Amino acid sequence: MLNSFVDELDAPVIPMAQAWGRAYQGALGPLIDLSQAAPGYPPPPEMLVWLGEAAASPDFTGYGPTQGEAKLRRTYAAHVSEIYNSKITPDQTHITSGCNQAFIVAAMAVAGAGDTVLMTNPCYFNHEASLAMLGIKSAFIECNPDNGFLPDIENIRVALRGVRAFAIVSPNNPTGSIYPKSLLQEIYQACRDAGVWLILDETYRDFMAEEERHALFDNVDWEERLIQLYSFSKSYCIPGHRLGAVVAGESVINAVFKVMDNLQICAPRAAQSAVAKAIVPLADWREANRIEIQSRAQAMRQAFSKLDGWHISSMGAYFAFVKHPFEKHASIEVAKAMAEQAGVTCLPGSFFGKNQDNYLRIAFANVDVETIGLLESRLKGFSL
Amino acid sequence: MLNSFVDELDAPVIPMAQAWGRAYQGALGPLIDLSQAAPGYPPPPEMLVWLGEAAASPDFTGYGPTQGEAKLRRTYAAHVSEIYNSKITPDQTHITSGCNQAFIVAAMAVAGAGDTVLMTNPCYFNHEASLAMLGIKSAFIECNPDNGFLPDIENIRVALRGVRAFAIVSPNNPTGSIYPKSLLQEIYQACRDAGVWLILDETYRDFMAEEERHALFDNVDWEERLIQLYSFSKSYCIPGHRLGAVVAGESVINAVFKVMDNLQICAPRAAQSAVAKAIVPLADWREANRIEIQSRAQAMRQAFSKLDGWHISSMGAYFAFVKHPFEKHASIEVAKAMAEQAGVTCLPGSFFGKNQDNYLRIAFANVDVETIGLLESRLKGFSL
Repeated sequence: MLNSFVDELDAPVIPMAQAWGRAYQGALGPLIDLSQAAPGYPPPPEMLVWLGEAAASPDFTGYGPTQGEAKLRRTYAAHVSEIYNSKITPDQTHITSGCNQAFIVAAMAVAGAGDTVLMTNPCYFNHEASLAMLGIKSAFIECNPDNGFLPDIENIRVALRGVRAFAIVSPNNPTGSIYPKSLLQEIYQACRDAGVWLILDETYRDFMAEEERHALFDNVDWEERLIQLYSFSKSYCIPGHRLGAVVAGESVINAVFKVMDNLQICAPRAAQSAVAKAIVPLADWREANRIEIQSRAQAMRQAFSKLDGWHISSMGAYFAFVKHPFEKHASIEVAKAMAEQAGVTCLPGSFFGKNQDNYLRIAFANVDVETIGLLESRLKGFSL
Repeated sequence: MLNSFVDELDAPVIPMAQAWGRAYQGALGPLIDLSQAAPGYPPPPEMLVWLGEAAASPDFTGYGPTQGEAKLRRTYAAHVSEIYNSKITPDQTHITSGCNQAFIVAAMAVAGAGDTVLMTNPCYFNHEASLAMLGIKSAFIECNPDNGFLPDIENIRVALRGVRAFAIVSPNNPTGSIYPKSLLQEIYQACRDAGVWLILDETYRDFMAEEERHALFDNVDWEERLIQLYSFSKSYCIPGHRLGAVVAGESVINAVFKVMDNLQICAPRAAQSAVAKAIVPLADWREANRIEIQSRAQAMRQAFSKLDGWHISSMGAYFAFVKHPFEKHASIEVAKAMAEQAGVTCLPGSFFGKNQDNYLRIAFANVDVETIGLLESRLKGFSL
């Protein structure tokens, strides 16, 4: 007999979309993979050198501190302090093996089986599945398509009743929406009023502009309310090395420490050493990537402006949430046919929640401007 | 408010023991660290070269298959097939980020919050804490100190009633005991009769002799009953790279796949590639290590034979479970004083369960024969 919490989970969806892509015969040219959010360019050469040096060193073969390498925690705390103009200490950080794991340990720190965590609809499917497999209940608040796919603050206040935490992703997955600074502060205050933890997943943070950043760390009581998550995967193009981070107050970091000690003992060490070296000198490289991704967003707008019936409903740092013209078809049917016939893989809206069947998530940051330009011809001839 | 399942966990114990070691002033010579099971010699030079090459390669920076690198799964399946004279396929394997994670995903595959998993007393503390933080209940069966710290089969049969899984570690942590082939087969049959999963953690497998290996894979229905865990950390001296493996039948592997997709997406890839290269050519190196560790066990016997009141109650692949002479003192008090005064860190028996206060766990494989020889003089002058 299996654990029903796990047994009842849907099969992982990314491999499903990738399988549709493999069924494409290549008639229109190479497959354009816009399914999994995966940086479409390699890490900078220095990053590979640092990764190689650290992995070849006997210094990182033994167990390391559960909370993370001291140098990475120091460097990351200084980095977060700088970009948020705040004072984050190394003790307020914990390194994880990727940001999915950061979400799980953050959720486990504040919620157990039977508790409820509030999320948005649509939401990142791994967050929903992660809670479900732990026996943690999910509640959902609708995002408003007429307001950039953001939830309305009045509805949030009501929905926060009786939940342990509110988990949001900004810049958002799947919609790309960036939560405005003012809305995030309102959400923070609502969480404070309700005694609810705010889990803020900032995996795509480095792809938004400086002026779009929130000021949540200015709240004097942020340690009692905020848990911030981050991924080194997208910003340094190293998802295969699995590194993420949590920033939180002492009580949450201490709980995360306990969870991680059982789950992982420590995140992989060599990559931690390499990333600690990379954070400061690669600042310009990260900024250049951000500009590049913006030009890809522009290419998306251009491509879809010429496509009848298609509409970019929201778009931000890494993703576009696109309304397709096949109203009578389920999004999974549309995405499958698009992959098999037009050689374009993306994810159906239904993977991200209820009532999302009119949409597709396009991880446009995966491919270059020229390839995005090909979407116009690929989709023009595509029908169901 | 924190998750009480996590909040109520004890603080991680290894850092506690390490802190005692730091309080030692060095009066009797360098600290002898026998606390955390950490290989006391570096990986072979080829291993470091392979790790460095893979980490420096752009081939492993992207996401990989959740189940693990195809080459590692193939190589590991062939390796397990060979040493157990069985036919394990790559589809019956799943790679994890360390064996602690392998235990958690195996437990989650078969048990959820409110279910019960049977363990032995004493048991590996991270197993107990892992279940507790997931809201899974633990039940314990006593190991028999008069029978090499193994549990009695009659008691196991009774204890299996109403549990989801029976988790054992062989060679054992903390006692070092190796479960005899016949006892393991009896346990397997008892699990089959009770409809209970047998989770067998073989982290220390490569440190036991060939003839001590079990024949559980000979059972035609093993896929419906057995989940085998393994760690690449100890055998290749690379715990910092965090790699483990699960061998199980299709239904469990499929459940593990779902859990891992949320928890980790994939284990760190570069190290997987390096280990895939290492398994076959390092066979002799592993065997030489095994012989070396046996000589350390011999040195342990010699050192303790000269110590009045001390008694090695059980010893096996990596650990000795030693009865100390301070009956009236709690084991935590003994271990702390030993670290601070004699410069020898080990773990108190009480970390491993109830009624273990007369014992200390000594991870003797950490240090060389000469250093083990120093234990005699260190402990001769030690009292409370």
